[in-house]
Amino acid sequence: MLTPAGLMVTREHVPQPSPRQIPIRVLQAGICETDLQLVQGYMGFRGVPGHEFVGMAESGKFAGKRVVGEINCSCGTCETCQQGLRTHCPHRSVLGILNHDGAFAERVWLPEENLHEVPDSVSDDAAVFTEPLAAAFQIPAQLSLERFQSAVVLGDGRLGNLCAQVLAQSLSHVMVIGKHPWKLQQLQNLGLQTARLADVTGSQITDLVVDCTGSTSGFRDACRLVRPRGTIVLKTTVAGDQGPSLAPVVIDEITIVGSRCGPFAPALAALAEQSIHVESMITSRFPLEDGVQAFSTASDSQQFKVLLQIGA
Amino acid sequence: MLTPAGLMVTREHVPQPSPRQIPIRVLQAGICETDLQLVQGYMGFRGVPGHEFVGMAESGKFAGKRVVGEINCSCGTCETCQQGLRTHCPHRSVLGILNHDGAFAERVWLPEENLHEVPDSVSDDAAVFTEPLAAAFQIPAQLSLERFQSAVVLGDGRLGNLCAQVLAQSLSHVMVIGKHPWKLQQLQNLGLQTARLADVTGSQITDLVVDCTGSTSGFRDACRLVRPRGTIVLKTTVAGDQGPSLAPVVIDEITIVGSRCGPFAPALAALAEQSIHVESMITSRFPLEDGVQAFSTASDSQQFKVLLQIGA
Repeated sequence: MLTPAGLMVTREHVPQPSPRQIPIRVLQAGICETDLQLVQGYMGFRGVPGHEFVGMAESGKFAGKRVVGEINCSCGTCETCQQGLRTHCPHRSVLGILNHDGAFAERVWLPEENLHEVPDSVSDDAAVFTEPLAAAFQIPAQLSLERFQSAVVLGDGRLGNLCAQVLAQSLSHVMVIGKHPWKLQQLQNLGLQTARLADVTGSQITDLVVDCTGSTSGFRDACRLVRPRGTIVLKTTVAGDQGPSLAPVVIDEITIVGSRCGPFAPALAALAEQSIHVESMITSRFPLEDGVQAFSTASDSQQFKVLLQIGA
Repeated sequence: MLTPAGLMVTREHVPQPSPRQIPIRVLQAGICETDLQLVQGYMGFRGVPGHEFVGMAESGKFAGKRVVGEINCSCGTCETCQQGLRTHCPHRSVLGILNHDGAFAERVWLPEENLHEVPDSVSDDAAVFTEPLAAAFQIPAQLSLERFQSAVVLGDGRLGNLCAQVLAQSLSHVMVIGKHPWKLQQLQNLGLQTARLADVTGSQITDLVVDCTGSTSGFRDACRLVRPRGTIVLKTTVAGDQGPSLAPVVIDEITIVGSRCGPFAPALAALAEQSIHVESMITSRFPLEDGVQAFSTASDSQQFKVLLQIGA
């Protein structure tokens, strides 16, 4: 069981799994930017991190089957849940992030309603990307993409890559702007247009920008690149009490859409039909007992996706 | 002619009116928050401020008639203008704000296409509110208000007052939250629900917040008060390079809509039919030669709308 490296771990605030939760034997788990931030103290989380995984359900209707799991565990009864906003339930726990031990462990527990069976055609390596890919599919769930002429994705990291591939399914003009030539090359190999941030000196070049940079400067770039009355989708948070000036948002009448977790069904379908390519992003694998080294490796910008190989 | 108090005024960067602009004899002009910020150096403007006015056109098809004027003077030919976004023309001048001498003067010049005749039933005192009221009517121009159950307006100043009255035409539940009991009382007198900010301790109470505070703390309050997947309309800018953290926008999947200048036609119609009440906001009047004192008075939070009486 891996706990955030370098933190004194206190477990008393992480509830034990309830009887209605299904035990899942973890096969593989992916380290994501949020995990790296949790280790730095984000959300004040104490417990086992890990929310991107594929595993084998050990009971319930999925017993013996490979599953992936939605990470928000909501009450189902409050006003927010009743309005269909279960991922925003104020009483929710969030796998590996909030009051819920996560998937960097031999076994993880989730409510059966959170589980999705993984099609046979989807490998373990691909299935572990279901959760971040679902987050990318939240963009078309929130916005009618057909009303945009083009899109720019800021950030060539894992989430930027996935968002760009999802947008390219609906838009013929998608450009990824990043800082890492070899990550941009991977996107070019998929047929996507790319540019290095330092080379993009223009302004107001597109009507949709998706900010996956996790940085305040990313938002400033987004405001520069979006046209008046355009839309900026924020996919990543930035730690700290301060942020960017919002004056350009008013002056250029920009719409900003915050976007978080998304639907698993289209993500699994895209992985099954291989319309989204993820496996080439995997750059390192570690056994669970080398978890601290895995975290250290994942924080290296020369790495892409780092996996923990846990079960078989 | 009034120039920003306390600033060395250099006129060479403010273009002379072109022959196609119509001279207008100014009758009255209102001092707005933007004017107060211009005096502090906002936009680096050098020239005559003033963009809320009613005057008498001296030539063209409106000659001898009372007019109000839209403040963005666009080229009409660039791509942005051709797309119908004339208020965002990158070549525009803006009356009293950007490369265009404003209305705190005996005479102001605007293109004829910017002018609107003032109906006889609208007094000079009411007509001077046309421009800020049009900015409030930009909200229903940008958003389908019927999809919201309720709205909170943050800020009980001039723009907050006008936005609340406009929203109340479409929504049965509108609450204005502010800091000035007597300004809130004026809104109560119009039948609007109000609350003092210090008394509002709850969170996620509404699905639409309109931020008219001009402060970073206003945005933080807006994030607290809006429901997940709700909308925050930003009507006011905050000076400075820094702003609020945008993390709540992502976590709660909030939509932010920047909103600036708006349509004059519904504003004039509302003033003509007196469905929006503005004249009770006027607290002081000064002749043009006492302009510096007028600015000083307008920056007092115990004042509401301060007018310059210029012509007759």
